[in-house]
Amino acid sequence: MGVIGLLDEIAAIGRDGATGGYRRFAFTGEDAELGEWFAAACRARGGDLHTDRCGNQWAWWGDPDAAVRAGRPGVVTGSHLDSVPDGGPLDGPLGVAAALAAIDVLGRSGLLDAARAGATHPLGVVRFVDEEGARFGLACSGSRLLTGGAAPETVLALRDRDGVSYADAAAKAGIVPDRMGRDDEVVRRVGAFVELHIEQGRALATPELDTPLAVAGRIRPHGRWRVELAGRADHAGTTRLADRDDPMLALAEVIRQTRAAAERHGALATVGRVEVNPNAVNAIPSRVRAWLDVRADDEAQVRTVLTDVERATGQVAVEESWTAVTAFDGDLTRQVAAAARTAVGCQVPVLDTGAGHDAGVLAQAGVSSSMLFVRNPTGVSHAPDEHATEADCETGALALAGILQTLVVRPSSEPGRMPV
Amino acid sequence: MGVIGLLDEIAAIGRDGATGGYRRFAFTGEDAELGEWFAAACRARGGDLHTDRCGNQWAWWGDPDAAVRAGRPGVVTGSHLDSVPDGGPLDGPLGVAAALAAIDVLGRSGLLDAARAGATHPLGVVRFVDEEGARFGLACSGSRLLTGGAAPETVLALRDRDGVSYADAAAKAGIVPDRMGRDDEVVRRVGAFVELHIEQGRALATPELDTPLAVAGRIRPHGRWRVELAGRADHAGTTRLADRDDPMLALAEVIRQTRAAAERHGALATVGRVEVNPNAVNAIPSRVRAWLDVRADDEAQVRTVLTDVERATGQVAVEESWTAVTAFDGDLTRQVAAAARTAVGCQVPVLDTGAGHDAGVLAQAGVSSSMLFVRNPTGVSHAPDEHATEADCETGALALAGILQTLVVRPSSEPGRMPV
Repeated sequence: MGVIGLLDEIAAIGRDGATGGYRRFAFTGEDAELGEWFAAACRARGGDLHTDRCGNQWAWWGDPDAAVRAGRPGVVTGSHLDSVPDGGPLDGPLGVAAALAAIDVLGRSGLLDAARAGATHPLGVVRFVDEEGARFGLACSGSRLLTGGAAPETVLALRDRDGVSYADAAAKAGIVPDRMGRDDEVVRRVGAFVELHIEQGRALATPELDTPLAVAGRIRPHGRWRVELAGRADHAGTTRLADRDDPMLALAEVIRQTRAAAERHGALATVGRVEVNPNAVNAIPSRVRAWLDVRADDEAQVRTVLTDVERATGQVAVEESWTAVTAFDGDLTRQVAAAARTAVGCQVPVLDTGAGHDAGVLAQAGVSSSMLFVRNPTGVSHAPDEHATEADCETGALALAGILQTLVVRPSSEPGRMPV
Repeated sequence: MGVIGLLDEIAAIGRDGATGGYRRFAFTGEDAELGEWFAAACRARGGDLHTDRCGNQWAWWGDPDAAVRAGRPGVVTGSHLDSVPDGGPLDGPLGVAAALAAIDVLGRSGLLDAARAGATHPLGVVRFVDEEGARFGLACSGSRLLTGGAAPETVLALRDRDGVSYADAAAKAGIVPDRMGRDDEVVRRVGAFVELHIEQGRALATPELDTPLAVAGRIRPHGRWRVELAGRADHAGTTRLADRDDPMLALAEVIRQTRAAAERHGALATVGRVEVNPNAVNAIPSRVRAWLDVRADDEAQVRTVLTDVERATGQVAVEESWTAVTAFDGDLTRQVAAAARTAVGCQVPVLDTGAGHDAGVLAQAGVSSSMLFVRNPTGVSHAPDEHATEADCETGALALAGILQTLVVRPSSEPGRMPV
C-alpha cells in the first residue's frame, strides 16, 4: 500500500471537524486507537510487536537481541503518531506510514525474509509516544524516558490541564508507571535509526533548492521557559486604574519584548501559550502565565534573548526544558544522503532544523541517528495546512526503503554499533 | 440565625480548595445545591416557593397575585448565589443571607403573619439565577430573560467553554427551554425591589465616608466587546520571524491600547479574558480572542475608549453586551436611605456603582428598585479577598429589615406600583 493510502486509514482519528486539525494527545482514546492501528499494520507485514516499558511500540523483523549478541544490531525507522493541538496530518504519521511502505518494498525484494532468518541486521519500525508533549508540556517524553534523557520522577509528576498526572494517564493506557524509565536493553537493539519527517519550513520548495528530500544536519538548540505574572484579582467595573495590579499589562510587555529580542539577536522566540486566571471578562486577572519557546543557531544567542526579555520586563523566566544543539551521526548521514540520492535521482541537501525530534533524543543518547525531510510546499507546520504532495511522499518512502536496504546488508561490526 | 451563620451553611459549596475562591456557575451541580438550600431556608421560615419559567426562585409571604389585584403589590428583596470564577463569598450570597435574616427579624415582630394574612403588602425573597454570566458570558441572564431585557432565542443559543448551550444546561437543571422568556405576571408582583450587596470598591471604608452602609445612586454605563485577532498557525521553531502572522503580537497591542485609552478618558477598561488557539508552547497561534470590559460615567466616554482602541490597533471590537446608565427609583432610594439611617444611626451616603446587578435590570424594566451596599474594607471584588465584617453584615440585615417593614405597611396605591 502507498503512503497516502496508509495515512488515509487513520485520517479520521482525532480530527477536529471544525478546524480540520488533529488533536491526538498522549494516552488518550485517540492515542490508543492509533496504537492499535500501528500494531495491526506491523503484524500484517510479519513484524513481531513489543511495547517497551515507556509505552513506545516496536515491530521487529528478525531477533534484535540475538543480533546484538552477534554484533549486528538492528536498523530502525519510524516516528510518532501524536499531534500538537490542531496539528497537521503529516508531522509524525508521515514517518510511520513511510516506514510501513518501505517495509512493503523490502518485503517484495525478499529482504524481510532475510532479516527474519538472521541473514542481515534485523529491521525495526518504532512508534514513539508523546513526541509533541502537547498534553504534559514535555516534548519527546517517550524517547527521553527510554534513553534516560528525562528522569521518571520528573515526568511522571507532570500534569495536564485537567490536573491528570502523566503517571495516571499512562497507567490508564495500560503502562505500569513504576516500570517507566531508562531501558538500555531496548536502546541497544538500535544500531542505526533513520526518521523520515515532513519538512517544517519551506526551504526545499524554494527555487534555490527545489528538490523533494533533504537530510538533517543539526537540530538547533532550543528550550521552553515559563513566566509567572502575578497580579491582584479585582472587579473590572469598580477598581480604579491606579489601584490595579493587572498582570495582563505585564503579559503585553512579555510578548513585545520577546519578539523584539528575537529580532535583535537573529533568533526565533514565540509566546504561543498563555493561561489567564480566572479568565473572566469582568475580572482583573489574579495571575497570568506565559510560555516562551526560544531557538537559535547557538546556545549563547538563546540565552541572550532570555536575558533581554527578563531585563526589559523585570520578570523571571523559569526553564521547563532545554535541548542543546544536536549533531546527527555524520557517517550515517552521508550514507543516508547517498542512498536517498540514488533512490530519487537528484540532489539531497543537508538542512539544519529548529524542531526537536525523537531522532535527536536518540542521537543525544549515543545512538547513531539520522533524519530525512520531505518537501512541504506550504512550509506550514503544527497546523492543518501542513502539506506534501503524494509524489514526494512516495519518493520519500522509496528513498527510505533504499536506505534501509543499504544499512541492513552492511557487514557486522562491534556489538551495539553500526559500521557506518 | 445571623447573616454569618447563614453564609456558613453554604460556605463549602463550590469552593476551590487551592484558591479559596468560589466556582458557582449557572445550572451546575453546585448551583442546584445552592437552590435547594435557598428553598429549604425559605420554607423553614414559612415562605411559599415558586420557580419562574426562567429558573429564578421566589419565596412569598402573602399571596402576590391577590395583592396585585388589590393594588398593593409585593415588597421583594434578594440577590444571587452564583459567582465569577474564583469569586468571593459575599457577592450575591450576602444579599440572600441578609434577606433571610431580615425575614427572621420581621417574623419576630409579627409582620410575616400580617403579610400572610393579607393585612400588608406581601413580602418576597428572590434568588436570581446566573447573575454573573460566568458560564455563558451574559450577566444577569435570569432577570434579563424574565423582564424581556434579553431575547430568549439569543440567550438560549449561548454556549459555555465546553460547547454546551444555555438551553441544554437549563434543561438539565430542570427548566423547560421553550418556556423561558418574559413573564409580566411574575414581574408585576414586584411593587418594590431592594437588593443588598457587598460594596465593590472601598469608598465606605475611606476616612471621608467611614460608614457601614450606602444606597445606590446609578449604575454607570458599561459593556463587553470581543476582538478577534486572526493569524496563521505555524511551527514556533521553524518559521522565520518575517514569515509569521502571529496574533499574539496583536493581543499585546490591544492590551496596551485599552489601558492607554482608559487612562486618557478617565474610564475603566480591562482585558480580563483571553482565548488562544491552539495555545501550545511550540505553535504560533492561529487565532487569539480578547474581551474588553469598558465602563465610564457616561456612554460617550465608553464609546470614545472603544474607538481609540480600534483606531490604534486596526482591530474591530464586536459588542457582546451593553447596559446603558441605570438610575434607580429616586423616591424609593430616599425611603431606603431614611429607613437604613434609622436602623444604623449614622449617615447613609449615595454611591454610584460600576457593576451591573439584577436590581438594575429590574429598574430598566420599570420596576421600582433600589440597592443597599455594605462596606468592604479590602475593596476587593470578584476575588476571594472580598470581605465585610460580621458587624457590618448584621447591620445591613437590620437595616434591610427596617426598610422592608417601612415598605410593607405603606398604604396601597395603583396596581403594580408602590406608593413611594
